[in-house]
Amino acid sequence: MGWGDLGVYGEPSRETPNLDRMAAEGMLFPNFYTANPLCSPSRAALLTGRLPIRSGFYTTNGHARNAYTPQEIVGGIPDSELLLPALLKGAGYVSKIVGKWHLGHRPQFHPLRHGFDEWFGSPNCHFGPYDDKARPNIPVYRDQEMVGRFYEEFPINLKTGEANLTQIYLQEALEFIQRQQAAHRPFFLYWAVDATHAPVYASKPFLGTSQRGRYGDAIRELDDSVGRILHLLRDLGIAENTFVFFTSDNGAALISAPRQGGSNGPFLCGKQTTFEGGMREPAIAWWPGHIPAGQVSHQLGSIMDLFTTSLSLAGLEPPRDRAIDGLDLLPAMLQGHLTDRPIFYYRGNTLMAVTLGQYKAHFWTWTNSWEEFKQGIDFCPGQNVSGVTTHSQEEHTKLPLIFHLGRDPGERFPLSIASIEYLDALRRITPVVQQHQEALVPGQPQLNVCNRAVMNWAPPGCEKLGKCLTPPESVPEKCSWPH
Amino acid sequence: MGWGDLGVYGEPSRETPNLDRMAAEGMLFPNFYTANPLCSPSRAALLTGRLPIRSGFYTTNGHARNAYTPQEIVGGIPDSELLLPALLKGAGYVSKIVGKWHLGHRPQFHPLRHGFDEWFGSPNCHFGPYDDKARPNIPVYRDQEMVGRFYEEFPINLKTGEANLTQIYLQEALEFIQRQQAAHRPFFLYWAVDATHAPVYASKPFLGTSQRGRYGDAIRELDDSVGRILHLLRDLGIAENTFVFFTSDNGAALISAPRQGGSNGPFLCGKQTTFEGGMREPAIAWWPGHIPAGQVSHQLGSIMDLFTTSLSLAGLEPPRDRAIDGLDLLPAMLQGHLTDRPIFYYRGNTLMAVTLGQYKAHFWTWTNSWEEFKQGIDFCPGQNVSGVTTHSQEEHTKLPLIFHLGRDPGERFPLSIASIEYLDALRRITPVVQQHQEALVPGQPQLNVCNRAVMNWAPPGCEKLGKCLTPPESVPEKCSWPH
Repeated sequence: MGWGDLGVYGEPSRETPNLDRMAAEGMLFPNFYTANPLCSPSRAALLTGRLPIRSGFYTTNGHARNAYTPQEIVGGIPDSELLLPALLKGAGYVSKIVGKWHLGHRPQFHPLRHGFDEWFGSPNCHFGPYDDKARPNIPVYRDQEMVGRFYEEFPINLKTGEANLTQIYLQEALEFIQRQQAAHRPFFLYWAVDATHAPVYASKPFLGTSQRGRYGDAIRELDDSVGRILHLLRDLGIAENTFVFFTSDNGAALISAPRQGGSNGPFLCGKQTTFEGGMREPAIAWWPGHIPAGQVSHQLGSIMDLFTTSLSLAGLEPPRDRAIDGLDLLPAMLQGHLTDRPIFYYRGNTLMAVTLGQYKAHFWTWTNSWEEFKQGIDFCPGQNVSGVTTHSQEEHTKLPLIFHLGRDPGERFPLSIASIEYLDALRRITPVVQQHQEALVPGQPQLNVCNRAVMNWAPPGCEKLGKCLTPPESVPEKCSWPH
Repeated sequence: MGWGDLGVYGEPSRETPNLDRMAAEGMLFPNFYTANPLCSPSRAALLTGRLPIRSGFYTTNGHARNAYTPQEIVGGIPDSELLLPALLKGAGYVSKIVGKWHLGHRPQFHPLRHGFDEWFGSPNCHFGPYDDKARPNIPVYRDQEMVGRFYEEFPINLKTGEANLTQIYLQEALEFIQRQQAAHRPFFLYWAVDATHAPVYASKPFLGTSQRGRYGDAIRELDDSVGRILHLLRDLGIAENTFVFFTSDNGAALISAPRQGGSNGPFLCGKQTTFEGGMREPAIAWWPGHIPAGQVSHQLGSIMDLFTTSLSLAGLEPPRDRAIDGLDLLPAMLQGHLTDRPIFYYRGNTLMAVTLGQYKAHFWTWTNSWEEFKQGIDFCPGQNVSGVTTHSQEEHTKLPLIFHLGRDPGERFPLSIASIEYLDALRRITPVVQQHQEALVPGQPQLNVCNRAVMNWAPPGCEKLGKCLTPPESVPEKCSWPH
């Protein structure tokens, strides 16, 4: 989902009344960022509070390449990483993930091995259908065991776009909340739905209801679901004891637009890029009785802050034996304090850009290669900023391209390198980047090796269902990450 | 000002708390259009309820050319046109225009000759300063007589951006409202401020206060002023008797971006073009106790509707002896009714495009010429949609380019002409355009002839001030309209 997909962020069709109301009752963050322009690394960052470069959610197979966890990936979340649900156990929290995990699908990487108590959902994206020969369909798990596969027990109709997954995920969420409330247990619910990821889907009551096509149908169903979750919290009388945060793991995938891709509002490009459209996200905090209603915070926020903030809410400290990139947002949310902090934009292990205050400096520019672009793969359709949306990797580490995001949120007008403003901005940014890079200890890269043998051929529980498939011979290969 | 310049429309810095509150207390129109992608014709349309092609606010000097009223223009609003303030007199209304008139600066075109009872402001844009030899500075009028000139009695500091004009215009508005309320007279105030038009200005308390640079300072001052006007209406106890509408006469001038130009949100291009960025406008209706608070109307609205709606509010009928393009918006505002109606996009007397429902058909595409573009004049900076943002005038009258504005508000993905959706849309649009064109009687074009002798050399009242200048010899020429 993109920054511009909610009514409260200016989507012209204004079809998100529940999320808009959540913002009106809570706090909107217009300057909130994910940790990476695509899924797996961002989700690793959310749950670890650390940049993907630290947790190993990157590749070194090529320069500045985006990598994730398709089902041929060998790696996943290392045991050495401490995830939010594992830490929250220290304060008695019960944790559940509903939806897409995406931190590795081999059994040792499963959510229940990393602190979650419950899981309903899938380890990988819902791509398919597959023939179960070249590759198997993605399994759906309940806790440790699979309960079926996408396109089999959990159908997605690619032609009509119909799938009941969001409704199933919603019921899982509501049931979990009710159960914890009844038992008076504190809980952490990670509701990681994926209806807006191509192939985009919605359930029958929502299909065809949006002015924005199928993508809008999916957004409407998510919006409705968020409304129901918040409503339940109020009904159960626990709204004032429950912190809820809504955000996205990357910008709208403009490559899927217009039928299966959304809007990044006024921002440049989308998913896969380190322009604002790829990493600035919708973000709403809701905690009635604590966060004052109808506020806007200009805090530069990060998805990694949710790690630190959640620990803070539970009365816990973040781990001290490792670098944590997340800030505690409570001072911003409860007292309106602003903390000066940088936002780093990575592709693989390459620091592409940094934002500090209103200034964003690009050290490298790239959308994708000329080869891909000529094949019609375009992460910036209709947008072309000369020298900025480049199709070769352009290095600017000595003299970065600097934009003022207040005057120029669309990153169209780089500051003149001869201006005093440029020099002042560079002077502020340089030591922050230097300090970051000097202290950085990259984790072991997890996204380098692929192997068809590790696909979801025979997930735990497949025997009971008679759904085990025979894996091919093990052939480890370097994964190919074209962009 | 552009669609994307208000917080409520998604501007990331969210610096328009008063306009955002106005929307929260009233009705927001995300699909509201001006009548032309530039100033004079749009303002003529607002006050006549008629397309500029009918009132003569166009040129035939070139094909599909934008024309306006610089001070060398000979034409202006014809006496045959009936303006809103003249009609409102029939219901006892007193009318005042504050700010830029722009319907002709020669005395016969002045607002007081066309129904306004009071005027404080200028006939033309605040360009300058001039040397009073090649061209005079633009006069500022109080009613029939000039009271000074821009850059002289009414300074605008081009270097710092400081000018007190918005504050002066605000005081004029507040004083007028108080006076009419005290006299229990119904009133029409046309508050036509121009601080966001380059050269952009703001008064000292606002300069440097925006995260968006000088343009943002100007927006903040306008926002603050609107807040003060609404506050006065409440204080005087007449808010529930006063209909207030906020909109703009064209999209943000991206050619002035980023320092003096604003945001058209997710829309394509800006001022001067017939893409959405040039003509879709912010629009907020406010009438406490009548228009329900916090509503969004998806009515396709037009600036010309304000003519018809205002007459309706005053219990008057629009003239029957001429074509009126404006709709009465009261059913949309008070009962939530939606009326199916086309939006026409003209450049000069060329119908460039039409929107009907969610579909927009372009019959001609053009931004500006290659010659201008190569000189750096760019109405779509950073945007380039192949075959759409063309630099030669491309005709598509037989097979228009059609976009679905719900799925694709940015006009990036034309529908395939082989699709059923395209054919269905074309089948709906064709008769509407045919009917429009067959019935259309263009007015005498007012914007063809220019003459340096008609400039503001010796406006009425100049003698008293000793500010009369000697006009040069009269040499009528065809005006040059490059785009």
